[in-house]
Amino acid sequence: MKKIKIEKKILSENEKISIQNSFTLAQRNILCLNMISSPGSGKTTILARTINDIKDKVRVGVIEGDIQTDIDAQRIKETGAPVIQINTEGACHLSAEQISKGLQNLPIDNLDLLIIENVGNLVCPTAFELGESGKVVVLSVAEGDDKPAKYPSIFAKAKAMIINKIDLLEHVDFDLEKAKKDATVLNKDLKIFPLSARTGQGMEQWNNWIIEQIKKYQTQE
Amino acid sequence: MKKIKIEKKILSENEKISIQNSFTLAQRNILCLNMISSPGSGKTTILARTINDIKDKVRVGVIEGDIQTDIDAQRIKETGAPVIQINTEGACHLSAEQISKGLQNLPIDNLDLLIIENVGNLVCPTAFELGESGKVVVLSVAEGDDKPAKYPSIFAKAKAMIINKIDLLEHVDFDLEKAKKDATVLNKDLKIFPLSARTGQGMEQWNNWIIEQIKKYQTQE
Repeated sequence: MKKIKIEKKILSENEKISIQNSFTLAQRNILCLNMISSPGSGKTTILARTINDIKDKVRVGVIEGDIQTDIDAQRIKETGAPVIQINTEGACHLSAEQISKGLQNLPIDNLDLLIIENVGNLVCPTAFELGESGKVVVLSVAEGDDKPAKYPSIFAKAKAMIINKIDLLEHVDFDLEKAKKDATVLNKDLKIFPLSARTGQGMEQWNNWIIEQIKKYQTQE
Repeated sequence: MKKIKIEKKILSENEKISIQNSFTLAQRNILCLNMISSPGSGKTTILARTINDIKDKVRVGVIEGDIQTDIDAQRIKETGAPVIQINTEGACHLSAEQISKGLQNLPIDNLDLLIIENVGNLVCPTAFELGESGKVVVLSVAEGDDKPAKYPSIFAKAKAMIINKIDLLEHVDFDLEKAKKDATVLNKDLKIFPLSARTGQGMEQWNNWIIEQIKKYQTQE
């Protein structure tokens, strides 16, 4: 007799809650992006500038993940967007349960976009689904062009990659084409946005992409 | 009757092996430094320059920890120092067991200094002792001066802190005094070395400190 192997995927507790989160968001037509990077790549600066750039068109909410402090949430608050700070107290990534609790404290009936800024870590957050529509990886040119090859997992999983701090390109050894190529080898569908959140250069393409993603998400059946 | 609470420390498997590693190193008078930082802070560049600067005085060996690739080990090889590459295949930190295996493949009877370059991650490697004499945290000025406050654990535990890429200071918003002060609040004994491994500025103080640490270690009873 021929044996047929039936594989049943056993969901972890985190995966189960992440699916609940994605339902909660989908019911309200909220696109959710999970921003992942090393510490200091400029996630909060990008986020604050993006919110200021698009807030007339899009209602944005933010969940800030940090091990300690509410420095980042304070910076986001200045944009006027609703923001929740989650302190992981040592843990190297946000969990779906923390996002679930965060959602209860955000005005989710009045949002088009939720951006989660994960704990600064290029490794651990990649493995924990939060219920997001997509991951965005941020790499600063100061970190070096070898990072997609050395930390492939997040570059393979992300929907978009921001190459930040391009205003520093002339002062550092960073080969933009090499970084793009190495990331594209891992992920042929990756959208890549070289920009400087400090000077504003390249922000428009990134902002337009977000608005386009929200439209696509909100009109899909 | 008065109860006396006797606390017995239960050692984890990693701690047990880390103690074995520290014995192995102590028997041979090898000072061991565990370098920890975010991806792209410049650990490998610092290390390569340090080895070239001090190799006439000190016999240096290196263990390179990376999730994937041997890019860093190749760069160290060019200095002529013996180097072992460990790929963690997804894990966010090196373990004492990996170091134990690495030691078997290094000429440890002919070393004064072992430098372990941990996986690029400011969080996870902090919690795993490897048998080192001390931890060195590296922060690049491109990462921002808020990192000691946001990721306090490694700054509290480190023996020394390198503030790297000071050649970029005029192009980024980084308050050197604030970073130093925040780190010193966490750790009053922390030795701080602002330097640029790219230009060489400040390397001398760092190199002298290492040589001094080796002397202290080798002459202590």
